[in-house]
Amino acid sequence: MDGFAPLPDPPYWAVIFTNQRHEDDAGYAAMAEAMDALAAKQPGYIGIESVRAADGTGITVSYWKSEDDLLAWKKVAEHEGAQRLGRERWYKHYRLRVAKVERSYSGPEGRG
Amino acid sequence: MDGFAPLPDPPYWAVIFTNQRHEDDAGYAAMAEAMDALAAKQPGYIGIESVRAADGTGITVSYWKSEDDLLAWKKVAEHEGAQRLGRERWYKHYRLRVAKVERSYSGPEGRG
Repeated sequence: MDGFAPLPDPPYWAVIFTNQRHEDDAGYAAMAEAMDALAAKQPGYIGIESVRAADGTGITVSYWKSEDDLLAWKKVAEHEGAQRLGRERWYKHYRLRVAKVERSYSGPEGRG
Repeated sequence: MDGFAPLPDPPYWAVIFTNQRHEDDAGYAAMAEAMDALAAKQPGYIGIESVRAADGTGITVSYWKSEDDLLAWKKVAEHEGAQRLGRERWYKHYRLRVAKVERSYSGPEGRG
């Protein structure tokens, strides 16, 4: 994980993307990096947290200021191409959940 | 990741826990496994998705039928003990977000 995403005052939005990759992942890392960089340029982007285990499972959570912002990101042309490649080639299975963040905090600094 | 969590009809709730572990992780794996098993016995439990990378970063998302269910799980005595150990010993840093899932789907099966 490159880092933790910021914690603005709720409410804000989270896209929780859990996935299992195929073993053949040609081109995946470069595309994932490009998509993270492109997401960071979109209106309403807050941050991304992403972890992948050695067994090919991964969870990526992107955070957005509003639901309109995350819907707009879904429709960005290059991202649509990446989503298609994901469906056709990279992911054995995935689940995606769109959720409204109601509370958030961090630790363990400053907690009893 | 042991598996994907079910996809009941929204709304339901997600607890998104992103974390960076200390390198000294004595006892962590056993406690994490015990907490996953204990969570699965709680009212309103839907499922857990969890991934940890080789660098010690992790994301665990647990899903609950209602906000009351996830608040009750937070207060289960054994879980409170694990949370305290997490703050004092295992986690260098963590962020926790409580979110209401509004939409969810899976793929790539059956998607255009």
